[in-house]
Amino acid sequence: MAARRALGCAARRFSAAPAKEWLTEDFLNSLRAIVGGPNVSTATVVREQHGQDESMHRNCPPDAVAWPRTVEQVSLLAATCYSRGVPVIPFGTGTGLEGGVTAVQGGVCVNLTKMDQISELNPEDFTVAVEAGVTRKALNKYLRESGLWFPVDPGADASLCGMVATAASGTNAVRYGTMRQNVLNLQVVLPDGRVLHTAGQSRRPRKSAAGYHLTGLFVGSEGTLGFITQATLRLHGIPEATVAAICAFPSIQAAVDSTVQVLQAGLPIARIEFLDEVMMGACNRYSGLSYAELPTLFLEFHGTQQSVEEQVGATEAIVQSNGGSDFAWAREPEARGRLWAARHNAWYAALALRPGKKGYSTDVCVPLSCLPEVLLETKKDLLDSKLTGPLVGHVGDGNFHCLLILDPEDAEEKERVADFAERLGRRALAVGGTCTGEHGIGLGKRQLLREEVGEVALSTMRQIKMALDPKNLMNPGKVL
Amino acid sequence: MAARRALGCAARRFSAAPAKEWLTEDFLNSLRAIVGGPNVSTATVVREQHGQDESMHRNCPPDAVAWPRTVEQVSLLAATCYSRGVPVIPFGTGTGLEGGVTAVQGGVCVNLTKMDQISELNPEDFTVAVEAGVTRKALNKYLRESGLWFPVDPGADASLCGMVATAASGTNAVRYGTMRQNVLNLQVVLPDGRVLHTAGQSRRPRKSAAGYHLTGLFVGSEGTLGFITQATLRLHGIPEATVAAICAFPSIQAAVDSTVQVLQAGLPIARIEFLDEVMMGACNRYSGLSYAELPTLFLEFHGTQQSVEEQVGATEAIVQSNGGSDFAWAREPEARGRLWAARHNAWYAALALRPGKKGYSTDVCVPLSCLPEVLLETKKDLLDSKLTGPLVGHVGDGNFHCLLILDPEDAEEKERVADFAERLGRRALAVGGTCTGEHGIGLGKRQLLREEVGEVALSTMRQIKMALDPKNLMNPGKVL
Repeated sequence: MAARRALGCAARRFSAAPAKEWLTEDFLNSLRAIVGGPNVSTATVVREQHGQDESMHRNCPPDAVAWPRTVEQVSLLAATCYSRGVPVIPFGTGTGLEGGVTAVQGGVCVNLTKMDQISELNPEDFTVAVEAGVTRKALNKYLRESGLWFPVDPGADASLCGMVATAASGTNAVRYGTMRQNVLNLQVVLPDGRVLHTAGQSRRPRKSAAGYHLTGLFVGSEGTLGFITQATLRLHGIPEATVAAICAFPSIQAAVDSTVQVLQAGLPIARIEFLDEVMMGACNRYSGLSYAELPTLFLEFHGTQQSVEEQVGATEAIVQSNGGSDFAWAREPEARGRLWAARHNAWYAALALRPGKKGYSTDVCVPLSCLPEVLLETKKDLLDSKLTGPLVGHVGDGNFHCLLILDPEDAEEKERVADFAERLGRRALAVGGTCTGEHGIGLGKRQLLREEVGEVALSTMRQIKMALDPKNLMNPGKVL
Repeated sequence: MAARRALGCAARRFSAAPAKEWLTEDFLNSLRAIVGGPNVSTATVVREQHGQDESMHRNCPPDAVAWPRTVEQVSLLAATCYSRGVPVIPFGTGTGLEGGVTAVQGGVCVNLTKMDQISELNPEDFTVAVEAGVTRKALNKYLRESGLWFPVDPGADASLCGMVATAASGTNAVRYGTMRQNVLNLQVVLPDGRVLHTAGQSRRPRKSAAGYHLTGLFVGSEGTLGFITQATLRLHGIPEATVAAICAFPSIQAAVDSTVQVLQAGLPIARIEFLDEVMMGACNRYSGLSYAELPTLFLEFHGTQQSVEEQVGATEAIVQSNGGSDFAWAREPEARGRLWAARHNAWYAALALRPGKKGYSTDVCVPLSCLPEVLLETKKDLLDSKLTGPLVGHVGDGNFHCLLILDPEDAEEKERVADFAERLGRRALAVGGTCTGEHGIGLGKRQLLREEVGEVALSTMRQIKMALDPKNLMNPGKVL
């Protein structure tokens, strides 16, 4: 039961699902009339490609996939499906980790990757507008000559509007914030096809107090309230200097204490990532490295030459007062890349611990002061559960992932993983944390969401969903 | 008409308003039973004290005022009013600037200032929880020994939950963000009396992707969705060093260009405030100062000693390349206070330009690149409209206020002010800005909100309002 809750998708469409009366050639022709024949597919292989993300959730293919190129086409697709009661699922790069794109009730998957225009770059105002399919790497490549960049980095080269949908964050969030702090405006196609500009069309003030904060409501809505077709983002200046460093600690407590002290000192650290000794061992083996297999912090400092030097000096003093090792350094881009390679390859290094198996990432986030205790209990639970799960954390935010490696064919192991993940979620809730810092609720964490926010918040969320999507057609079965 | 739109409150209750059948001794007794007899008042003077804020909007007194001390009492008051269809209006310090507390339909004003407890200070996690009546100065006094502070500073010593309700910001927002970036969780009493925790009870992770962002929805909701009875806030470390500076410019363009260049250089400036030559003249006369009566920037730098020196040096170079004067400096708290006194007293200095008259503050926010043009057009409009209105701006955010001084008894002048304010709002909208950076919509900007966000966004906001407050009893007549 627990395994199905956490890793399976609803079995409805595979059991006694009602016949899909809407699924007719006439309906498909109406989609083709909107986006063009070659931009609609019902091929099994295509549908299966769109039936899952990078998570372990069961593949639930949509009935058809459509590739619009414009917001008008998305609007027409939505209106067409709305009038016939057909579920719709927005699809970006498919790099989500909570089953957000699985078509648990079938329907039409709307693949937004062909909407890939970047517009309205305003360097003086630090703003840019990107269509739904633009990825973060594509944006940063586009920005290269401008002296600006978009820092939110969840690891995968995800689409930026997909990152909006899941309230993504990642390694730079401790300094630059998550998607919540970096979105100024959204263009959204509502379930019935109307086009909403959450802050008004073409608006991009740095702040506003005008009416309800619709932008904030759509950030993290996981495709359940509308299609995010364009995002106006806040950009940042590329720092004059960047320095990367690595440092090993005698204990998890020492690594986390150092993190808290760095933050308390007001040091504007850009990245502070934790890897446990299991993760470091996996990285050493995967990348042929020889780091100490101890709790380790990967750090990055951004600023002017002078301020970076000062940050590094102050951080080194804090680290050493907690028994940390000397820093390993890197200043030039290539050297920084080599130093951080271990962190960037963590997911693949974890997978290589058990070749041929699959990975499942947990995602709790807890108040910093509770982090050592939660990390230690989690490591004990891993041992007790006989599971392989190196730890990696955006420790400056109190967010960490346990990269569980499992055999998806082994039902008993899947159940153990699901039970472990639920215990970990509840452990985070018990100390005032959340079951998801950045991956979202998707399919598997709906019960934990209920426990986390309580019945009144859940019913308020349901009222909002009902108000904006009264037919429950937008990515049904997710979040709530 | 324009004057009534911008400065008047709905005339309903003074014309053919239906008799208030609910306003009985029995009803008042039920309020008294909840909060105690002395904590309910229907005295005219008390009702009038609660019928307006610091704006020019007409005083619309509530029918009764109640002072709860606990969230349970707020919940009972809400449920009692809900069951009888009685409008309710949350009231904090009454320092709002858009008529948010005026009781345009009468009803019960719930004064939350007796809920003044501060709890759950977690210095390691940079979080604290404050009840509805705690003001920002009271919180910072409480925090004094902790090494932490709450930086959002709208000028007035407003209640923090009132600041949540209006999405307040002010002088430090360019560095530390607005209320939106500094609220982690809210306790809210919904219109029917149920108690909502927007992020779940006692939760305070630094980030979360768990379900719809209810916290963000209530920030800026202006009392129209529920009573904000407690806020969990993000705190910041008190900087090791603070330096204040003032610098005069030959033109508005030069002052704004300097601001853009400071931000583009990634300098983490804490405050960068603009005062025009009229405002500087007013400040000189009010405070007996002798600053140059030129466009002027007031700056503040926070950081370590070394980083502040670096910021100051880099900023001075930028300022001088734009023809700015040498910096006037202040390092020690008292000297900083003297230097910034002109800025802090700007409102009173403006009022002193026409003794005995009243002030009305506009609040547009535009993309930085458009700011010089909007400022210059606004100054020309002031001249053409024969209005007194010194300018002061949170220029790092593109937000500025025109402090219009007028005779509230002079209907013709009120009309000119209202017309000017509408033109200014539309001028901001025309360049992609907002009609309100930080004061909110309240009563007078509902038409501008419609123009700003468009019909689809407005109807989406209405759907949310209807879902959460189906009887339209929470602060009716505001925002939408």
